[in-house]
Amino acid sequence: MVGRHPTAQLLAVGEGRYLLDCGEGTQLRLLENRRRLSSLRVIFISHLHGDHYYGLFGLLNTLHLQGRQEPLTVVGPPGLELALTTVAFHAQAQPGYPLTFVPVDTEAHAVVYEDAFVRVWSLPMRHRIPCAGYLIEEQPRRARLVKALLPPGLSAAELSQLAAGQDLPPDEASGRPALPHADVAMPPAVPRRYAFCADTRFQPELAELVRGVDLLYHEATFLDDLRERAATTHHSTARQAAELARAAGVQRLLIGHFSSRYKQLEPHLAEARTVFEWTELATEGLLVSL
Amino acid sequence: MVGRHPTAQLLAVGEGRYLLDCGEGTQLRLLENRRRLSSLRVIFISHLHGDHYYGLFGLLNTLHLQGRQEPLTVVGPPGLELALTTVAFHAQAQPGYPLTFVPVDTEAHAVVYEDAFVRVWSLPMRHRIPCAGYLIEEQPRRARLVKALLPPGLSAAELSQLAAGQDLPPDEASGRPALPHADVAMPPAVPRRYAFCADTRFQPELAELVRGVDLLYHEATFLDDLRERAATTHHSTARQAAELARAAGVQRLLIGHFSSRYKQLEPHLAEARTVFEWTELATEGLLVSL
Repeated sequence: MVGRHPTAQLLAVGEGRYLLDCGEGTQLRLLENRRRLSSLRVIFISHLHGDHYYGLFGLLNTLHLQGRQEPLTVVGPPGLELALTTVAFHAQAQPGYPLTFVPVDTEAHAVVYEDAFVRVWSLPMRHRIPCAGYLIEEQPRRARLVKALLPPGLSAAELSQLAAGQDLPPDEASGRPALPHADVAMPPAVPRRYAFCADTRFQPELAELVRGVDLLYHEATFLDDLRERAATTHHSTARQAAELARAAGVQRLLIGHFSSRYKQLEPHLAEARTVFEWTELATEGLLVSL
Repeated sequence: MVGRHPTAQLLAVGEGRYLLDCGEGTQLRLLENRRRLSSLRVIFISHLHGDHYYGLFGLLNTLHLQGRQEPLTVVGPPGLELALTTVAFHAQAQPGYPLTFVPVDTEAHAVVYEDAFVRVWSLPMRHRIPCAGYLIEEQPRRARLVKALLPPGLSAAELSQLAAGQDLPPDEASGRPALPHADVAMPPAVPRRYAFCADTRFQPELAELVRGVDLLYHEATFLDDLRERAATTHHSTARQAAELARAAGVQRLLIGHFSSRYKQLEPHLAEARTVFEWTELATEGLLVSL
């Protein structure tokens, strides 16, 4: 509907830029929000319904026209590669950059991607067609060494060990006693975790897989008076999303993917907050910091 | 680029609604301009570069979700059907309405579609990949009979003959003399013709095929100082579009498909008008009446 575009979320972790779904018009939305397309590293697609990936054809083509050289990885359900290559074939527009497809087993909870910034797990969704959610875990960060507490004469290797959270054994040559890393290092921040769950019918068992995440995005297509309709169309209600958030003990909940039948979204927010207070609406251009 | 969307034109002839090309985001542009998607009858695609048809996946899917029952015809280069059906297959979104593909021989000038309102001819374009232009001819309109001039007692069949431009022979039974249609009918308006030419390098021989049309749309990707680049990329300059318009003796020229390198378009218009005065820019949301 006018004013609400299909699904796409841009995630920034360190220098990594990750796109979660890519509905029609995503490249234009990114440009309007002054995001450089060239910084994208990986694109995760949940499923092959149009509102979640029909913008991918144009985005991949634009990256090619921009002269991209850096590799790009696309993670998604198995049919995605054929759809993309068929379309690119007829345009005679094979990308000039290395493009890797990672097919996802949408029934499994497994690591599907990892780099220096994130480790990404698939989450099994229950939708009309094969569909994956994604759990993005920040890579463990290194401890910060407190210079004033460090004994003199440590080697670079020893400093690196301490920063990685390892204790140093006694050093017989210099006579330095054992050095527990906790004596000289500030503990690193706990890695942040984000779970992206779209589209799916309500599945209480998902709570185990997203337990305690910093942010849970969950679809909330309907209000709870249409709980039956949500079940038959393999979608969820705002209340169900909140029930999952509460059961999983997450920090915050973001609900989205609202049916176009709803002109106003306050009822979704109100309904979810009766169950889980720390709920927000995923609206156009929303920026969330963790 | 922001502010300029890819190609799509909506043509209205009688009750018929025709879409010429369907770049990414076209369905949203149509809704923003308050056009009912359901009124579409036929979609013509020039070629399989993304900026000319990547909006078709979403549009066809939306028509399905809207519960469309009426048939839809898609006319375009042969690869189009495979691209569309591959994408729809993975979405498990076979349209619930009859969808007919008409493959176009992009080297030929031939009738590719006809209904009660229009007859459409293909126009061979010269682009990097197979590409068709389209010449849309309004069907001949019926003469308007002037009631006051009609002799009494004519049958419906006779009235229909007169309106179709045929003379009536003498009627021996009633003694009515021969009745030339010109005596009782206002001549019908000359059928209007619109030629849509995108994308193509300059081809002077096209003038013969679009001679005297009421409106010529011709791509003008570059200004004429980049005439060499236009030739190597199989595009045209504003001046070349105007030269074609002048050679073909068309009524009006509409230029479009400007490279994103140009932030301002006045130079395109000025350049074209030095050759052909009745030139306009095809800008976002432009409405042209013939």
